[in-house]
Amino acid sequence: MPTFADRLASAVQQKKTPALVGLDPRLAHLPEGLRQGIDEANLGQVAEAFRMFCCGVIDAVAPLVPAVKPQAAFFERLGPPGMQVLWDVVGYARENQLQVVLDAKRNDIGSTAAGYADAYLGESSAWRCDALTVSPYLGDDSLTPFVDVAVERDAGIFVLVKTSNPGGGLFQDLVADEKPVYEHVARHVEHLAEQSVSRSGYGAVGAVVGATYAEQLSVLRAALPHSWLLVPGFGAQGGSAKDVAGGFDERGLGAIINSSRAVIFAHERPEFQEFGSARWQDAVYEAARQMIDQLRSETPAGRLG
Amino acid sequence: MPTFADRLASAVQQKKTPALVGLDPRLAHLPEGLRQGIDEANLGQVAEAFRMFCCGVIDAVAPLVPAVKPQAAFFERLGPPGMQVLWDVVGYARENQLQVVLDAKRNDIGSTAAGYADAYLGESSAWRCDALTVSPYLGDDSLTPFVDVAVERDAGIFVLVKTSNPGGGLFQDLVADEKPVYEHVARHVEHLAEQSVSRSGYGAVGAVVGATYAEQLSVLRAALPHSWLLVPGFGAQGGSAKDVAGGFDERGLGAIINSSRAVIFAHERPEFQEFGSARWQDAVYEAARQMIDQLRSETPAGRLG
Repeated sequence: MPTFADRLASAVQQKKTPALVGLDPRLAHLPEGLRQGIDEANLGQVAEAFRMFCCGVIDAVAPLVPAVKPQAAFFERLGPPGMQVLWDVVGYARENQLQVVLDAKRNDIGSTAAGYADAYLGESSAWRCDALTVSPYLGDDSLTPFVDVAVERDAGIFVLVKTSNPGGGLFQDLVADEKPVYEHVARHVEHLAEQSVSRSGYGAVGAVVGATYAEQLSVLRAALPHSWLLVPGFGAQGGSAKDVAGGFDERGLGAIINSSRAVIFAHERPEFQEFGSARWQDAVYEAARQMIDQLRSETPAGRLG
Repeated sequence: MPTFADRLASAVQQKKTPALVGLDPRLAHLPEGLRQGIDEANLGQVAEAFRMFCCGVIDAVAPLVPAVKPQAAFFERLGPPGMQVLWDVVGYARENQLQVVLDAKRNDIGSTAAGYADAYLGESSAWRCDALTVSPYLGDDSLTPFVDVAVERDAGIFVLVKTSNPGGGLFQDLVADEKPVYEHVARHVEHLAEQSVSRSGYGAVGAVVGATYAEQLSVLRAALPHSWLLVPGFGAQGGSAKDVAGGFDERGLGAIINSSRAVIFAHERPEFQEFGSARWQDAVYEAARQMIDQLRSETPAGRLG
């Protein structure tokens, strides 16, 4: 099997877009038809609505995008029934030939980190994801177990480096040895990534870099020549296509750009009102297309052909 | 209902020990009777063995200790059946009047962080835990949602500050503004904790500080006067009772000391061979008693009466 880095490159080239759709289901924002009659306190009912919604989003976007990013928190919120639905949704995305990046920001040390890696990474794992987001605070021996399992199973990880939230700087921007902490993290990510580079030129270790910091994105693109960048914060969080342009390499590869709310809850956006609640999947499709067009016209993703 | 900080203080005073038992089930280390006939590839079977093992550990230690700490990774490894068993184990611990600290090191931003907090914290949550471990890299607006939910639901969080693994220093020990990063994190934890102090003198926001750094533990005890410290690394990871002594206040409160493997897999330790595999729960009981005795004789926990 090709490595995750190469599968992602192929998928981006085939779909001609780096657009990544985040699956962040929230009951209050589901289309009316999926919300109707659901008792919010009945977690099994809510989970079933999430399953129908996420699979509906996948149906709409699978022809357009290379990958989806389920957000674990929203499934965990529902307890065991939610976890079952997360499993179903990952499987459905895979059946639809989408790369699945689970956004779960796991982290731990030693054999416990290996436990998380074993849980989520690769076809033979319980959750069968292609890649997983990982938090770096615990240091190098917390990242190595994830990297080892990822490499062994042709899977990938994305390490949080510079995040898109306003408070992200509190610890990430502290300056030590004349560099902000996030650059120290980036340097370690590059050290890990360069050891697993495959055909695409990228390794098994990527980085999460927020779209709200356009300048840092270019700096980190240069500092991380062997890492796919996962760029959240596009759309609803305020990042524009121009802001993310610095994340790409000259082929239009090297970055996947996530949008969640603006795509999956497109039926709530004024410009897609025409579809009405019943045709919510058409709104999702159109919102994804709009995002793809913006990325094509304002970033090197336009070179994807 | 009393706050988590006060419930923990009461439980520690009632049991006269700060010993916390980590529930880290691993198939290879389960007593023979629970491992027999289990197909490792059958995750449902393994999950059922984990349920019986963890409930058996709880039966053994519930008379002795105030709290247990299930490690989420080992349940997540088994996919949805493992998550159901985690739910069962949390419920069983609660029935046995134990405080449940879920070690899941969750972290995210804004409404996603709120999703995790909503998922895990308090009786009304899906997972019904008393407290949750949280990773700080994403900054203040990633911690506030956890704190808000914890305070609202009389639950608690433990923020990773200084961890017990050899590689923990890679980012935590970087020096910025003349202080290591972990002290910056500690300062923010104190800022959050002091706003929710209740009768015990402690707030809803605790800190994880490894037992392998005896000196830093005293420094952080002083820097975090309103935070319960969760101290892993005792026993199998090399921390001794003397090493953790600095974590307590003058009443013998303020720290809970975790041991996982040395207690739950006590049947594998040479000194408990006499019990044999069948009486593994007696070995667990004796190992917990031994740990409690060590903490009583070499730390301020001896003052608990």
